[in-house]
Amino acid sequence: MIEMSDKENQLYIGIDGGGTKCRATVFSTKDGIVGTGLGGPANPLHGLERTLESIMVSTQFAMKDAGLGSNDVKQVVAGLGLAGVNLPGLYQKISQWHHPFKKMFLTTDLHTACIGAHKGEDGAVIITGTGSCGFSFINGKGTSLGGHGFSQGDKGSGSWMGLEAVKACLLDLDGLGPQTMMSDLMLKHFDATDAMSVAEKMAGKPSSAYAQLARMVFASAEQGDLIASVIVREGASYISDLARKLLEKNPPRLSMIGGLVEPLHKWLDQDISIIVKPPIQPPEIGAVYYAQQSLANN
Amino acid sequence: MIEMSDKENQLYIGIDGGGTKCRATVFSTKDGIVGTGLGGPANPLHGLERTLESIMVSTQFAMKDAGLGSNDVKQVVAGLGLAGVNLPGLYQKISQWHHPFKKMFLTTDLHTACIGAHKGEDGAVIITGTGSCGFSFINGKGTSLGGHGFSQGDKGSGSWMGLEAVKACLLDLDGLGPQTMMSDLMLKHFDATDAMSVAEKMAGKPSSAYAQLARMVFASAEQGDLIASVIVREGASYISDLARKLLEKNPPRLSMIGGLVEPLHKWLDQDISIIVKPPIQPPEIGAVYYAQQSLANN
Repeated sequence: MIEMSDKENQLYIGIDGGGTKCRATVFSTKDGIVGTGLGGPANPLHGLERTLESIMVSTQFAMKDAGLGSNDVKQVVAGLGLAGVNLPGLYQKISQWHHPFKKMFLTTDLHTACIGAHKGEDGAVIITGTGSCGFSFINGKGTSLGGHGFSQGDKGSGSWMGLEAVKACLLDLDGLGPQTMMSDLMLKHFDATDAMSVAEKMAGKPSSAYAQLARMVFASAEQGDLIASVIVREGASYISDLARKLLEKNPPRLSMIGGLVEPLHKWLDQDISIIVKPPIQPPEIGAVYYAQQSLANN
Repeated sequence: MIEMSDKENQLYIGIDGGGTKCRATVFSTKDGIVGTGLGGPANPLHGLERTLESIMVSTQFAMKDAGLGSNDVKQVVAGLGLAGVNLPGLYQKISQWHHPFKKMFLTTDLHTACIGAHKGEDGAVIITGTGSCGFSFINGKGTSLGGHGFSQGDKGSGSWMGLEAVKACLLDLDGLGPQTMMSDLMLKHFDATDAMSVAEKMAGKPSSAYAQLARMVFASAEQGDLIASVIVREGASYISDLARKLLEKNPPRLSMIGGLVEPLHKWLDQDISIIVKPPIQPPEIGAVYYAQQSLANN
């Protein structure tokens, strides 16, 4: 049981909002992590109401997990990392929220991911999952690179690889592009018989649906398929360039985070792959660090 | 005034449904074109109700323009060319419509465009506007190629060129890709100052918004910009390949239709550019031919 009356013991909650779920971690100065909770989607770019609801759901679960009452949330200092709050309009809207916390400190999900990865210290991160982007935080200044969204940006990400694979297969199946083993894999995957039926299955689908095809691209590249290898190499080359650009600012550490880190690693340029360090803490702990740092500077 | 009682004189209406408007033309066996009308969007893939409404609006305007009463529509044989009716489900739904015509014959917009372009005869067409695709109609058999939609297909189209241009500019503005004069043009066009603000302006935009940028790509290529030239050449090369694939079926004639025909022509491979013939009639007249042919075979 946590003593809420203990003046030496400040409670924090770190919240990492994402497109599919929201993670909350309650942290006590005295005892470290005391509870965690999970909520639904919390990407304010896809809906503000839903985001705030998911934040509250994950908070309530985390408080309960920590053996705290829902009223105790008034004594907790919150750190929030959310996508899209680099946009001034969205930052303002969420800042104006009548939140239940003692104090709330808001920043981007990139920032909390970066602080977490480097245990509160300066550094740089590359996110490669459904999307891709780079971020560095050095001497109080955050800089982001890439992350321009599907389908115009996020090169080297899962959705980018999936889209490039679909494009290549449609050309191949029409007899208007080089052959690739991915075409047969894709026909099987979609239970389809021709290019048009593959196209229909993917029409209007979100980036996450394309990202699910990335595994097929890596598997085909591993088996020596030329077209799949070209896609993976081009994606990996962009991620290596992104890393080099981030390293120009001399971050003390560089980490990669996301579902594509493992399959992509061997395809990166060697000067980059040997430099990349594993993230020390997850983004929700980064959000706790952010709350602590912000409170200290407050 | 058209004599509705004249048994020798059959009236037809040709209807070409498109994503932004619907064109209808009333045609009399004796007098040729006697009236035209315009309606709203008529792409059943974007809404069936709206499509049927636009068909009726354009029909009513065309009937009025021909000096006919709205009741006379019962004596008119209709030919309809609509996107998406290559899908059996959509074909069936529109076929089951309680239409007001004497008879209604339904086919794809590609088919009516092709029949129109070749004045009712066999041939092949390439459509290059917002999207791109190929179609041939030979000995009673229609075959389509490409046209898999934004952003996974429709290579060489306006939306494809616009998307490739945005991708190149975002890389350039991030310092992660070669320089292109399109970056400055795009910053000006969007009244933006950096990559992220260009990305935001285009986020979630439909293919038509990307197609509006195609002019910028052609203009930059004309001025010798390397990146713009690579995009235009790659697009033109695909369209040339598409033409060659269509020519394998020995169509008597090949036409190109759409907003990109003129700017793209000089970039096509020479063996293709010298073969392409102008379309003889527009798609709505193609729809009249289709109605006449279908009635004769009925």
